Amino acid sequence: MRVAVDAMGGDNAPEPIVRGAVEGAREHDVEVILVGDQSLIRPCFPPGTAGELADRVTIEHTEDYIRMDESGLQVLRRLDSSMSRTALLVKEGKADAALSMGNTGAAMAAGASFLQCIEGIKRPAIGLAVPTTNGTPFLLVDAGATADCTPGILLQFAHMGSTYAQDVFEVPTPRVGLLSNGEEAGKGSKLYKKTHKLLAASNLSFVGNREPDAMLRGEVDVAVCDGFVGNVMLKALEGFADFTGEAIRAGFDRSPWTRMVGLLARPLLRRVFSSLKYDAHGGAALLGVQGILIVGHGRSNHVAVANAIGVARETHDKQVVEHIREAAAAAVDETPENGDPG
Amino acid sequence: MRVAVDAMGGDNAPEPIVRGAVEGAREHDVEVILVGDQSLIRPCFPPGTAGELADRVTIEHTEDYIRMDESGLQVLRRLDSSMSRTALLVKEGKADAALSMGNTGAAMAAGASFLQCIEGIKRPAIGLAVPTTNGTPFLLVDAGATADCTPGILLQFAHMGSTYAQDVFEVPTPRVGLLSNGEEAGKGSKLYKKTHKLLAASNLSFVGNREPDAMLRGEVDVAVCDGFVGNVMLKALEGFADFTGEAIRAGFDRSPWTRMVGLLARPLLRRVFSSLKYDAHGGAALLGVQGILIVGHGRSNHVAVANAIGVARETHDKQVVEHIREAAAAAVDETPENGDPG
Repeated sequence: MRVAVDAMGGDNAPEPIVRGAVEGAREHDVEVILVGDQSLIRPCFPPGTAGELADRVTIEHTEDYIRMDESGLQVLRRLDSSMSRTALLVKEGKADAALSMGNTGAAMAAGASFLQCIEGIKRPAIGLAVPTTNGTPFLLVDAGATADCTPGILLQFAHMGSTYAQDVFEVPTPRVGLLSNGEEAGKGSKLYKKTHKLLAASNLSFVGNREPDAMLRGEVDVAVCDGFVGNVMLKALEGFADFTGEAIRAGFDRSPWTRMVGLLARPLLRRVFSSLKYDAHGGAALLGVQGILIVGHGRSNHVAVANAIGVARETHDKQVVEHIREAAAAAVDETPENGDPG
Repeated sequence: MRVAVDAMGGDNAPEPIVRGAVEGAREHDVEVILVGDQSLIRPCFPPGTAGELADRVTIEHTEDYIRMDESGLQVLRRLDSSMSRTALLVKEGKADAALSMGNTGAAMAAGASFLQCIEGIKRPAIGLAVPTTNGTPFLLVDAGATADCTPGILLQFAHMGSTYAQDVFEVPTPRVGLLSNGEEAGKGSKLYKKTHKLLAASNLSFVGNREPDAMLRGEVDVAVCDGFVGNVMLKALEGFADFTGEAIRAGFDRSPWTRMVGLLARPLLRRVFSSLKYDAHGGAALLGVQGILIVGHGRSNHVAVANAIGVARETHDKQVVEHIREAAAAAVDETPENGDPG
């Protein structure tokens, strides 16, 4: 299997990207194509990996790349940017998956435009695995690809998420929950109330509305929401982890005694908080497009990059895209009346 | 000042409600009218408070009350329920503020129906003070009253929130931020992009889009969003606090050494985590109605109830409702074209 990696995308690219890609290639037994400026990429290779590199890692040289603060739509104009080339390698059949830790908007635009949506799929969604207190993750879908949704689009997200959970989490009958601000069917905005009805009438294993805390307790395998709410929630959790860490630090700083306790507790707390940074763990899959595109957080370190290579490998081996194609067709059949987004 | 308190509303009512109301009456120098079943309320009076009670606390007896899991709309049918009576006391001029820790839907329905919206205000919003890492809170508006919003409604929320921040936070020119999934003006759903334009054209001190983490760092005084997103975000933070606490507990439970460190750190961590339960601190104001209605979390303890009495007192003393009436009129003038919710 060949994974094309946008080596120039990420807050500290290319160093952690290159290092993580090399490690990921080894750990997950894949070939990696690093896309970007070879004069910047080569110095980042870990020492003593030359022989291995020749076997597993190649460079697709290009000098342009989309900066983190540029409009994602730039990928459509700058086909020689590392992100565009990365996605195009998949489209042209020269790679089996694309991976980017760069500008998320650019990655999504590249996915939607170059790979295009699967026949019948209205909009793509980001599926992100979120850990829970009971140890098994749930898939948050959509974590940020499509801000404006219709009930029909959300139903498709539910089908795609359910397929992903079957394939990757290996849950035979995934419990699908609709993110909401209350468990009763009448809760939520109009969009969510209508979606609730569609989900209840579908052949999915729909467990009803769930609040975020119930999801974090592991009550669902798939959490369905629009990309705006999903992304806001994700960023709230991310911000809250920082906030809590800060509050704990300030608490430990009150007296010599608490400072000493803080010193003892610090390694453990650091491990816990690092495990809470969901989106810096690995990658999330852009679901609904004709190919595999994994997007990761800009601040990903080399471990997260290597993990994301693993996500690409698993998505490929489990044939998620093929299965989503089938599930999507089923979802479209269910809701002929819920055609286009408003 | 007289505060009517729904003594029967809350997960453990009436005990913590009665105790907190008596304490709050003393701390904040107000009269309290406890609305509910006197045979259940009387045994909850703290011992030795008889003389004080005669001066400050009266009971408005009624036997019916809306359960936590009943539809909020029941308040409209059961006018003798404690929540209905509590709101009606304000409407009839027999109390200056209403307070409920009960069924939030019922409290909002009572506010919207009995107190009614201020002339020109399209929809009410819950304004909740959220603490930040820099020590000064921001007002989240709407934290859950109105799930379906238009740009014009969100503009009104911004005006109401700004007025509240001026009055209660004593910030002369509150920085208003629009909750979004990215700082760029082009980020967000269609609703949020349109709202961004209205806010930018308003006379408010609009600082642009802000992600949740920026808000938790104290970059705004007022965070504007619809009640669906606001409530989901709030519940995500609430759930995440529990989740983090659980992860830390599990981390400390790994070995005898970490268990000992955990014992030392526990009092401090407990204090930090209790401070993170935003909505159990006191009360949030239902903004936009003709009167003061403070809603609190069902799990509020007596301290939170006493704090909520303080919120009622401050909202009254600072004349927030009168000032919102003026600000609302200004907001309506600004957006004649953004009339009704879709």
